[in-house]
Amino acid sequence: MKKVLVLGAGQLARMMDLAGSPLNMDVKAYDVRSNTVVHPVAPIHVYGDLAHGIAEADVITAEFEHVAHDTLATCEASGKLLPSSQSIKIGGDRRLEKQLLESCQVPNAKHVVIESKEDFEQAIEQLELPIIFKSALEGYDGKGQWRMKSVDQAENIWQEMSDFIAQSKSLVPQGIVAEQMVPFSREVSLVGARNTHGEVAVYPLTENHHTSGVLSVSVAAPIQENLQQQAADVFAKLTEKLNYVGVLAIEFFQVGEQLLVNEIAPRVHNSGHWTQQGADTCQFENHIRAIAGLPLGSTHLVRPTAMVNILGEDTVPNEVLAIPSLTMHWYDKEKRAGRKMGHINISGHDELELAQRLVALANILDDQAFPDLAQFAKKYLSRVSK
Amino acid sequence: MKKVLVLGAGQLARMMDLAGSPLNMDVKAYDVRSNTVVHPVAPIHVYGDLAHGIAEADVITAEFEHVAHDTLATCEASGKLLPSSQSIKIGGDRRLEKQLLESCQVPNAKHVVIESKEDFEQAIEQLELPIIFKSALEGYDGKGQWRMKSVDQAENIWQEMSDFIAQSKSLVPQGIVAEQMVPFSREVSLVGARNTHGEVAVYPLTENHHTSGVLSVSVAAPIQENLQQQAADVFAKLTEKLNYVGVLAIEFFQVGEQLLVNEIAPRVHNSGHWTQQGADTCQFENHIRAIAGLPLGSTHLVRPTAMVNILGEDTVPNEVLAIPSLTMHWYDKEKRAGRKMGHINISGHDELELAQRLVALANILDDQAFPDLAQFAKKYLSRVSK
Repeated sequence: MKKVLVLGAGQLARMMDLAGSPLNMDVKAYDVRSNTVVHPVAPIHVYGDLAHGIAEADVITAEFEHVAHDTLATCEASGKLLPSSQSIKIGGDRRLEKQLLESCQVPNAKHVVIESKEDFEQAIEQLELPIIFKSALEGYDGKGQWRMKSVDQAENIWQEMSDFIAQSKSLVPQGIVAEQMVPFSREVSLVGARNTHGEVAVYPLTENHHTSGVLSVSVAAPIQENLQQQAADVFAKLTEKLNYVGVLAIEFFQVGEQLLVNEIAPRVHNSGHWTQQGADTCQFENHIRAIAGLPLGSTHLVRPTAMVNILGEDTVPNEVLAIPSLTMHWYDKEKRAGRKMGHINISGHDELELAQRLVALANILDDQAFPDLAQFAKKYLSRVSK
Repeated sequence: MKKVLVLGAGQLARMMDLAGSPLNMDVKAYDVRSNTVVHPVAPIHVYGDLAHGIAEADVITAEFEHVAHDTLATCEASGKLLPSSQSIKIGGDRRLEKQLLESCQVPNAKHVVIESKEDFEQAIEQLELPIIFKSALEGYDGKGQWRMKSVDQAENIWQEMSDFIAQSKSLVPQGIVAEQMVPFSREVSLVGARNTHGEVAVYPLTENHHTSGVLSVSVAAPIQENLQQQAADVFAKLTEKLNYVGVLAIEFFQVGEQLLVNEIAPRVHNSGHWTQQGADTCQFENHIRAIAGLPLGSTHLVRPTAMVNILGEDTVPNEVLAIPSLTMHWYDKEKRAGRKMGHINISGHDELELAQRLVALANILDDQAFPDLAQFAKKYLSRVSK
C-alpha cells in the first residue's frame, strides 16, 4: 500500500481518497487550519502534525494552489512533493502564470502586470477597453477584481486597487494583472494528467457554465477535433515545460475557432468531476496514478456526461435519485451560502438523452438553489435536438 | 447524514462504504471476531461494541448470511435490521432456502432434505445419479460436500456425512440437502434490489465462471430477453414473499432455455462487482439506497463489463493498469492462499472489445495466479468474433 499525503482537506482530497482506496492507496489529508493530518472522509480521525505526515508519506500532493510557501518548501525538501512547488505556486499567482504562458508561446489574453501607478497607466494605454484587473494572488468573495469600461473610472479603480494591495497580508507581494477582455463565445476546460514517466493523457474538453462567477454546470460530450487538438497541444507544452506530475486543468476562452488560456489549476478540478461517471478512469484516480508512478488510465469519454454543482444547499429532493444514471456526490460540509456542498453527475447514451435528463433534473430542483439550471437545460436540449 | 451499520467487516462492507460516502451515508462495520464496530475502510478506527453500534445506527444490514442468530435477534429487536433476520437466515441454511423456493414454486434442482439414515436412503431412491450432497449450514474449504456417481459409494459417504453432522458445533442443528445434479450449460446470476417502498430493479444476468469451486470471472453483456425475464420473475416472487429489502443475488443453472435456481444470497454479491463500472448505479449504492428508503438507481448496462477475481495474490503487474477501462479494486486484506484479495473490472464498447481486453489482461497476469483466465478469454473472444 502506497501512502499519499494531500495538502488540503476539502472535497478534492476526499474524492482522491475514495478513488485511491480501491487502488490500494492510503490517502491522508493535511488540514491547514488545524495543522493536523486527518482522514479525508472521516476527519474526526487525526494522525498528528505536518512533520509526522510528511515522514509517513510516500508521496505528497496538493488539492489547492494557495498553500503557504513555507509549507511547500518543507514538503519539497522531503523529496516527495508532486507536482513541484514551482508548479503549485504558478497556479496561485497570475503573474507567474502569465510568464509561463508567454515563455511557452501559448495564446492568452493580452495583459500588463501592474505594480505601480505607471504600470496602471501603461495598461490603460496598451490594452483596449474593456479591461479586467485581477489581483495576482488569491481573491475572495469577488474582491480583488475590477472592470473598466471607460477611462473615467481610472481614478476610482486605482484608488481601490492600491488600497487593496496595501492591505494585503500575504508574505508574497500582492500585484495586479490587467487583461484585455476577450469576446469569447464560451468557456471550456481541459483536464489531463502527466505521470512521473512523462506519459500524458487528456480528457475531452468540457464546456463550462458559471453562475455569479462560480462554476455551475460542466458538460463533456464529443467535441470538434481541432479544438481538442489545440487544447492537448497547450497541455503538452505547459506540462513538459514544468516537468509537471499529476492532474492539471486549463481553462480556455473560445474565440471563433481559437482557444485562449484563461487560467491554469495545478490540481484536480471542479470541471473534471464528470469523469467520475463519464470517463474510463476518473481524474482523482489518474492524479493518484500519476504521482504514484503508475500507468495513466484511459481518459476516453464513455458517454456524454454533465456535472451540476450544488452550492449552498445540503439537501436535494430524493426524487432526483430516480433519474437514470444520476449519482450524488456530497462533500459532508457544513452548509454556508454559496459554498460548494456537492455535485450531481448525470449521463445519457447520447447528448439528446443527457439533455432530457438535465431538463428532468431542473424540473425537480429548486429554482432558487439552482438559478440558471432550467434555462441552461432547455437551451442545451434545443441545441442538441436540431 | 444517515448512519448505516453493516454486520461483517469484509470487502462488501468496505465497498458499501466507498459507494455510500458520496451519497452522504456514514457506513460502519461490525467485526464479529473482535466484537467491535470499525471503520470499513480503515478498521484501525474502533467505535465501540455491537450495542453501541446498534444504538448509533439508523439502519442495520449484513454483508454475509452466516451471522450468529443471537446477533440477528438483537439487531432485529432494534427495529433497524434490513433485510429481515428471516431473509438473512434463509441464505445461511439450504433447507430454508429450498422451502422458500418450493413455496414460491420456483424451478430448482430436485432434492431431498436428509436428517437421518432413512432420509439418506430415500434420497438415493428418489433422485437420479449423480447426486450432490451439501451441508445445510456453512461448509468451508470444500468440506461439507459429497458427490455420488454410483450407489457403491453410499456406505462411505453416509459414514463421512454422519461424522460431519456429529462434529458440527453450530447451535442450529446441521443437516444435509441431497440434490440431483443438473446437466447445466452454464451458470448465471441475477443481482437486484428491492427498497422499503417495494420498488424493484434488477441488473442484467451475469455469466459466471468458477475455478476450483470459487468464482473467477463474471461477464455482464446484453442477454436473451426470455432468460432475463425468467430471472426477473423469480426475483420478484422471492423478494415479495420475503418482503425483502436490499440487494439479493440469485444463482441459476441454465438448462436449455430454462433457469433453475441454484442458491440465493441475501446481500451484495461477488457476481455483481462488475456493476461498479458497467452499470448506471452499482450494487453497493443500490443496496444502501434500498435500505435507506431512497429511490433505486437505474440498473441499466452501460457497456459490456467483466469482473476478474484476484485470489490469494496481493499484487499484479502495474502494466495491467495501462489497459483501457481497467480498474483495480483491492480489499486491503492480508495475503492467504485462495483468499479473495481484490478484483479487476474491465469494459469494452462491445463484447468484441471487451474480449480483446480480457485477452490482453490474461497475457500480462501470471498463469499460476489466474489459472483459467487465458483459456476463458480466448474462448470468449472466439465466441464473440463470430
